[in-house]
Amino acid sequence: MEDRSLSREPSPGFSAAACAGSNIAFVKYWGVRKEPPGAGMPLNPSISMTLREAVTTTRVTFRPDSLPERDTLVLNERPGPPEALARVTRVLDEVRRRASLRAPARVMSSNNFPTSTGVASSASGFAALALAAAAAAGLPCAPQDLVDLALMGSGSACRSLYGGYVLWDASFGQEPEANPVRQIAAEDDWPLVDLVAVVSREAKKVPSSQGHLLAWTSPFLEARLSQARTAARIVEKAILDRDFETLCQAMEAEALSMHAVMMTSKPALLYWLPETVAVMQKVRSLREQGGVPCAFTIDAGPNVHVIALPEAAPEVRREIEALPGVEEVLFCTTGGGPRLLEADGPCD
Amino acid sequence: MEDRSLSREPSPGFSAAACAGSNIAFVKYWGVRKEPPGAGMPLNPSISMTLREAVTTTRVTFRPDSLPERDTLVLNERPGPPEALARVTRVLDEVRRRASLRAPARVMSSNNFPTSTGVASSASGFAALALAAAAAAGLPCAPQDLVDLALMGSGSACRSLYGGYVLWDASFGQEPEANPVRQIAAEDDWPLVDLVAVVSREAKKVPSSQGHLLAWTSPFLEARLSQARTAARIVEKAILDRDFETLCQAMEAEALSMHAVMMTSKPALLYWLPETVAVMQKVRSLREQGGVPCAFTIDAGPNVHVIALPEAAPEVRREIEALPGVEEVLFCTTGGGPRLLEADGPCD
Repeated sequence: MEDRSLSREPSPGFSAAACAGSNIAFVKYWGVRKEPPGAGMPLNPSISMTLREAVTTTRVTFRPDSLPERDTLVLNERPGPPEALARVTRVLDEVRRRASLRAPARVMSSNNFPTSTGVASSASGFAALALAAAAAAGLPCAPQDLVDLALMGSGSACRSLYGGYVLWDASFGQEPEANPVRQIAAEDDWPLVDLVAVVSREAKKVPSSQGHLLAWTSPFLEARLSQARTAARIVEKAILDRDFETLCQAMEAEALSMHAVMMTSKPALLYWLPETVAVMQKVRSLREQGGVPCAFTIDAGPNVHVIALPEAAPEVRREIEALPGVEEVLFCTTGGGPRLLEADGPCD
Repeated sequence: MEDRSLSREPSPGFSAAACAGSNIAFVKYWGVRKEPPGAGMPLNPSISMTLREAVTTTRVTFRPDSLPERDTLVLNERPGPPEALARVTRVLDEVRRRASLRAPARVMSSNNFPTSTGVASSASGFAALALAAAAAAGLPCAPQDLVDLALMGSGSACRSLYGGYVLWDASFGQEPEANPVRQIAAEDDWPLVDLVAVVSREAKKVPSSQGHLLAWTSPFLEARLSQARTAARIVEKAILDRDFETLCQAMEAEALSMHAVMMTSKPALLYWLPETVAVMQKVRSLREQGGVPCAFTIDAGPNVHVIALPEAAPEVRREIEALPGVEEVLFCTTGGGPRLLEADGPCD
């Protein structure tokens, strides 16, 4: 598990570009701590796979000579929305504090995957931002140096600071010294495929940040947290053992358990669409009747991630694409950690 | 709440016919006690509405002169399956014991609604059987005399012994004297409509009897039982207050909570089909965006019961029928308790 990312030295030139892959969680977190307010620390550990094909590329340029104006954000070649800029500035403020910089920054960021397809652009986006900003400011750039920065933008972004399979154990967060994020296995140790069945591109009505607080209104939250902690141990071991069958069972149970909490909160969050269930039922039948190595997982939205062994991916993709209402199937494999770029460009 | 059912005297002639309506539970039970084995007493109270239009008519004829052969069962004009006959004989054995009879019986039963449409034929069937068999054997025939008999066939059958809205509080079952089943309000007190959206006629893969035992494998069972007890109090009060809005909220939360237990059991029970979710989402949007008084509830299967105020029923029916994959919408209203029939025939 040699760390092959971030092999280049941070740029000293007030400008740096970095790219990072999104990730899909096999064990998800749902529900964040109420105290301290706004901290948003998750109530249970999560485990994800970093995605190779779904990446964000971000350039950060601090402008010491410019007037003390605000940071600017260009997202996918358009001005970024105010909420996104506010989160970006939160990260940059901390970088400026650590580097004793006062300059505002220009941030240009673009995803190579379409938005609202169930792939978390905040995960790849804030991982790339943390690395590019730290490098541009001449700060240390090892993944463990970036965890706090990435977390200021998005919880799941801290998992995108490593390649392969990554554990984020929030309970470690209590001790400031301990690194709450670590790699379980590298991307080459166990290549898997994530086929994202896109059934809707509509933005969800209740954003995750709001949903995380609603989690407390479900009568199942407490039981779910205990179940998720067990699931994290099982999934970590399954990854270390390359035990896909165990991973499948644990991953599906995990996703269903999270959605059970969502649909029993007040108000009930029903993220599923008819097509969501169609994909779930197809995946279960492919595996249970057809012996095809695949399993589903679902984030806080209607799109379904189908995790498969590489040799099964073509068949799974064919079957999923044939379902009515599946608009598109995105193909991703296990990817590495974020990288500093010599020049702007795609990650690979 | 005058009891207008069972006004006729039990027949002394070794033969009687009765009809009973099925019911739809607003607060369901899921999970049965493990001890004593086979008793199948539910872990939480349930509340249902008896259905007027979905009825079973059953004639029981004891044949003292015939050879001591086995009971026979004709179900919808065909020989009944062995599992059904076994349950029928269990009820008849208890009737024979109480009446000191030894004669085998011929049971002829028919439903006026199609099977596998999400309407429980066991509820109406065993309520009608209990009444017809008791009457034919000259036993007492008040609803409270029939609870034990109906329960030997099917749990939900005991709720079909009363019309209107019925509470079955299993925790009362501990004291043999207490009647665990009672009417909350009569059918005329609050007429509601149940529109059953039939999206599949396939028999479910995992029968309820098996599912009830799987409930223990869900990490959410304990929290669910406590939630269901609260829901029963809320729903009982909503029925007494004719508070449809509160009923809607509690009923949907209740159904989602039961299905959350099902989908987190091991193995996971996923009773929903794509069309199930389509109906759920449509009902929620009719109510929340359109102000249409309706709410869904779902038994252990894919079909959706949409409960509505009578004035909203035509609109709800039109909207639900228009959804792709909805094969049929059955129309039911609040019905009365079982009745002894002079001659075989429909209940109304």
